[in-house]
Amino acid sequence: MTLMLAAADRGFTLSLNGMILIDQSPDHPAFYVGRGRERMDMYRGNFEIEDYLEERVPLTHAVVDGNHVHLSFAEGQPPAMTLIVDKGVIQCMAAGSHFNRFWMRVRAEAGEHVYGGGEQMSYFDMRGRRFPLWTSEPGVGRDKTTEITLRADLMGKAGGDYYHTNYPQPTYLSSRRYALHVDTTAYSVFDFRNEAFHEIEVWAIPRIIELFAKTTFVQLVDQLSRRFGRQPQLPDWVLDGAIIGLKDGENSLSRLDAILAAGVKVCGLWCEDWVGLRHTSFGARLFWDWRADETRYPNLKGRIVELRKKGIRFLGYVNPYLCVDGSLFHEAAMKGFLALTDMGGVALVDFGEFQCGVVDFTNPQAKDWFAERVIGQNMLDYGLSGWMADFGEYLPIDVHLRNGADAKLMHNAWPTIWAEVNARAVERRHMTGEALFFMRAGFTGVQAHCPLLWAGDQSVDFSRHDGLVTVICGALSSGLLGNAYHHSDIGGYTSLFGNVRTAELIMRWTEMAAFTAVMRTHEGNRPRDNLQIDQDEAVLHHFARMTDLHVRLKPYLKALSREARDTGLPLQRPLFLHYEADDQAYTIQDAYLLGPDLLVAPVWKAGESERQLYLPGPERWVHLWSGIEYAGGEEITIAAPIGQPPVFYRAQSSWAALFKGLAGNARPAG
Amino acid sequence: MTLMLAAADRGFTLSLNGMILIDQSPDHPAFYVGRGRERMDMYRGNFEIEDYLEERVPLTHAVVDGNHVHLSFAEGQPPAMTLIVDKGVIQCMAAGSHFNRFWMRVRAEAGEHVYGGGEQMSYFDMRGRRFPLWTSEPGVGRDKTTEITLRADLMGKAGGDYYHTNYPQPTYLSSRRYALHVDTTAYSVFDFRNEAFHEIEVWAIPRIIELFAKTTFVQLVDQLSRRFGRQPQLPDWVLDGAIIGLKDGENSLSRLDAILAAGVKVCGLWCEDWVGLRHTSFGARLFWDWRADETRYPNLKGRIVELRKKGIRFLGYVNPYLCVDGSLFHEAAMKGFLALTDMGGVALVDFGEFQCGVVDFTNPQAKDWFAERVIGQNMLDYGLSGWMADFGEYLPIDVHLRNGADAKLMHNAWPTIWAEVNARAVERRHMTGEALFFMRAGFTGVQAHCPLLWAGDQSVDFSRHDGLVTVICGALSSGLLGNAYHHSDIGGYTSLFGNVRTAELIMRWTEMAAFTAVMRTHEGNRPRDNLQIDQDEAVLHHFARMTDLHVRLKPYLKALSREARDTGLPLQRPLFLHYEADDQAYTIQDAYLLGPDLLVAPVWKAGESERQLYLPGPERWVHLWSGIEYAGGEEITIAAPIGQPPVFYRAQSSWAALFKGLAGNARPAG
Repeated sequence: MTLMLAAADRGFTLSLNGMILIDQSPDHPAFYVGRGRERMDMYRGNFEIEDYLEERVPLTHAVVDGNHVHLSFAEGQPPAMTLIVDKGVIQCMAAGSHFNRFWMRVRAEAGEHVYGGGEQMSYFDMRGRRFPLWTSEPGVGRDKTTEITLRADLMGKAGGDYYHTNYPQPTYLSSRRYALHVDTTAYSVFDFRNEAFHEIEVWAIPRIIELFAKTTFVQLVDQLSRRFGRQPQLPDWVLDGAIIGLKDGENSLSRLDAILAAGVKVCGLWCEDWVGLRHTSFGARLFWDWRADETRYPNLKGRIVELRKKGIRFLGYVNPYLCVDGSLFHEAAMKGFLALTDMGGVALVDFGEFQCGVVDFTNPQAKDWFAERVIGQNMLDYGLSGWMADFGEYLPIDVHLRNGADAKLMHNAWPTIWAEVNARAVERRHMTGEALFFMRAGFTGVQAHCPLLWAGDQSVDFSRHDGLVTVICGALSSGLLGNAYHHSDIGGYTSLFGNVRTAELIMRWTEMAAFTAVMRTHEGNRPRDNLQIDQDEAVLHHFARMTDLHVRLKPYLKALSREARDTGLPLQRPLFLHYEADDQAYTIQDAYLLGPDLLVAPVWKAGESERQLYLPGPERWVHLWSGIEYAGGEEITIAAPIGQPPVFYRAQSSWAALFKGLAGNARPAG
Repeated sequence: MTLMLAAADRGFTLSLNGMILIDQSPDHPAFYVGRGRERMDMYRGNFEIEDYLEERVPLTHAVVDGNHVHLSFAEGQPPAMTLIVDKGVIQCMAAGSHFNRFWMRVRAEAGEHVYGGGEQMSYFDMRGRRFPLWTSEPGVGRDKTTEITLRADLMGKAGGDYYHTNYPQPTYLSSRRYALHVDTTAYSVFDFRNEAFHEIEVWAIPRIIELFAKTTFVQLVDQLSRRFGRQPQLPDWVLDGAIIGLKDGENSLSRLDAILAAGVKVCGLWCEDWVGLRHTSFGARLFWDWRADETRYPNLKGRIVELRKKGIRFLGYVNPYLCVDGSLFHEAAMKGFLALTDMGGVALVDFGEFQCGVVDFTNPQAKDWFAERVIGQNMLDYGLSGWMADFGEYLPIDVHLRNGADAKLMHNAWPTIWAEVNARAVERRHMTGEALFFMRAGFTGVQAHCPLLWAGDQSVDFSRHDGLVTVICGALSSGLLGNAYHHSDIGGYTSLFGNVRTAELIMRWTEMAAFTAVMRTHEGNRPRDNLQIDQDEAVLHHFARMTDLHVRLKPYLKALSREARDTGLPLQRPLFLHYEADDQAYTIQDAYLLGPDLLVAPVWKAGESERQLYLPGPERWVHLWSGIEYAGGEEITIAAPIGQPPVFYRAQSSWAALFKGLAGNARPAG
């Protein structure tokens, strides 16, 4: 890769492999610096953020000197910033500390597409929109024209919008076959609304802008994946069935037996209530003191051993907060491991009728303590094979941390540090690639530590911005940045304002999950108000067949997992990744390739019994259920009754025999 | 008044009567210029406005040369703007046309209060908040924490916020006894959130910043009122009772008879449906073709004459739009009097199942035509003594106007031009001070043309940001800028989402209205769902007594009207206007002085039978109902049953005998 700086008439150009990315002239400056004062208010993980921008100064005057560019407001003015172009990166050096805002404009082209930004849930192709990058709750509804969103806003500023995500990352990949990454944890914004340029905004002067270019997208993803960290292979046991999420205390075990009796293939039992409950006016919540509650789960340790003998792993739950009335809070407070307030007291975060301390992971001892004492001893040594490593997005922006850093700069960094704490615990016990934790929060570098993403808390519906279809967008966007493994709560999670699961929703979600890395159910936030997989015979039967199908895919999924380890390619891939010449493949976000050989187009709307989808070309595709072969390069409509999700395999696939065998197994319900 | 420019160390100061307003140094620039691209979308008078700010450059380098200040980004740079300080104004001259944004910082002091901004409905003292100034619908609910607001947002982006108003004006008055006015019709923002400065933002380079200073607020209001135009005196007939708003076709007349029979003092009958109805799925709307509908009101002309003999005036309704299926639209279109689209066709605005043309008042002939042909012939000659001159806030920002001006710059100017059209019709018939129209929309200069403001469309409730109490804020803020006369819809207007009038609300609103310039009822947007004054005996009885009380105030109100003509002082005044030494008087916005001698503290919350209020001092105040005398300078709690609104008069008032007599008349109901 060659990053080339060239002086031009009173300006300069910066080219990557001969492709002009920055083209600055006095009339069209590419860099701006400024000064702003932000207002950020957090309401349980939802943020109101506003910038009072006092200055935004175009750096119209450029002097090129070797690999340096000195930028100033006008000729004769001292440089406000110097760029050093070296080894594929742009270093930015600001003069003085007056400026705390930075903008850079990268040339954009007509028809160009851009992807990434972390895990985006609404728009895969980010062109035409503006994306603030700040880890937060994703919102409930995420669409200001829907009643659920507005009700959530009214209830707790929780409605969210299209760009809200648990996992932002200041990296994008362009259809021009390059990628750009900003090395910062500050609040930043990627603005793709303009025709002539993409604008990068950072609420700090970023140290480094990294550039990547390759001749194919496959190579580019490989390169990004090496940059951000390659994930371990998926544990084998995960491919042996579904992880069943129950939080019903002892009943969970008897319900699991009934589920097994119905023929469901199960690889794990996930009980987030393994830590016990707290009763609030909002309903039952977990008790945030991370150790087994043997009142709720008598002899849990023994039961875990018994389950294991049956080939079923046990998974739990943890997050980086400690409730004030728990033993771990007390221990952490005594050791000085908690973040502090301005006044020097322990900072407490309100989670709804209970308060928690924030473990200060900038203190290496606190980090070790959480990894060893909490996750290591209380979880791994106890017998857990995995857990949901929840949260990561809630670092309050006004706490005092041991490393002295501004909490506003640590906020985005927190998910990756949280992943690192979890990974360290696993690594210390040599269980990397064996124990499996999954996270919804993320940021740059989370790839190196977190073995599996989960798509967060969708609403239990088919809505465009918070339902089933958003999971695909999350998998594709994060996948391009080196997150190979992605999955979601089957049936969705958030049930509010009378919005509840239908049997159809659970079945459609199950069908999609069967064609991802991991199948896992969740009872949701209101288990009693919502249908569960074991409460309806048709749903359970359908679920059993889909787990069987998923298990039959194991050899293929294992091969993809090896490929991910070797090349960084995600299991779920956008169509253009393997069909670069097909223009239509660049904007599809409701279908994906599972590895190179399967095309999956989930039914994501209610009441549909067929689906329109696009088959990329040139290629020949075989419909999984009918065996009919289609030529790629066309949009087709395919019958898609419940039980026959629209899936196709490459006619030329070396796995064709395996795929062909799947159809015999899973017939439509009813 | 002396406006003094003085060079200081690498900067300058600008003082008004010795008070420093601008204090610029290189580290603390007071002026910024910039460049932005706005996005403005209108949804039936509600706007979504966003600015993409590309540049905001501090003009840190100042060179003073006589009464000129040359401002540039840095020494050696060409001036970006020159200020000329002369005769109490600051002229701004920008170099070139690159910049389209302007900011100015005026020194602020601890404890300083600021007022004005046109007619503000939520916050009288604007300190601590930011106020965009753009004429629009004020919103329904105007408080994002209430369900009504969010439902209105969901329905049509119509919820609004604290700063939305039909009548903005880029003028503020400071408790430092100066006022500042920006001579612009561009979108502007007054930002009073900072401790050290007030920031004026204009989306244009304003031509002139005007400054005013006096030693008392009374003098300052006088000066502002002369600047913006002195209103004519209120017609005598308006003080002879209430204007009864009915829109029930012929029934209106028989209902009026019953109201009269109940002892209500009536000076006018206001039938907005005098133009007939249009039936839509939203319910009955008016037919926007401005002439009498003698189907709905048979022999209306004759009935008007009969009413007049009984001392009752007839009032109607008009707005600056013409429905496409009306005769006036056809006439205006033929004459080329309508605003056009980009394509050269007539621009149509959707008002909900019907479309209208926009009369292009930048065309002098169109203006004359509307004044003479529509208002003159169809309304005044027909016998109307007044009307609601509705709207003025809806000029679409993308229409083409005859004068070639950008519609974005005409949008704010429109209400004043609309007022001028109405005033011209009245003036041509020598009926100024006799015919009475009332408007909710306004902008700089509306004072010179519009004889009476009405507070717009409150919700039919006691809510903090859209209920009864907002009317007081509207009267006080607009009053300081030379709008002497203010009134509101008794009982409020907007009934949505099941929110309906209570008897208590109507009675409390009536009590307040009795102590304003004009009493007028409105049936509201959903007459059949809401209680009307003639549907409940207690309400009607209470209303009758309050009209009687209002009529007894006539000599006092007439005197205030003369005072307004002579001095520009509004009838409703903030307490500090006459009690400058009383610190507590500066922040009260739920009570007012009616002239110098009455203090009115309406009950504005539901279910209250007493009120806390502050009596300014030094002064002695007599409670209207008990005759008990109180010393000013204290907060007191006073009994306030329905029928005894908290009203006090100055013990020393020359009108004491009149006020004393009021109590005998209006006893509590029930």
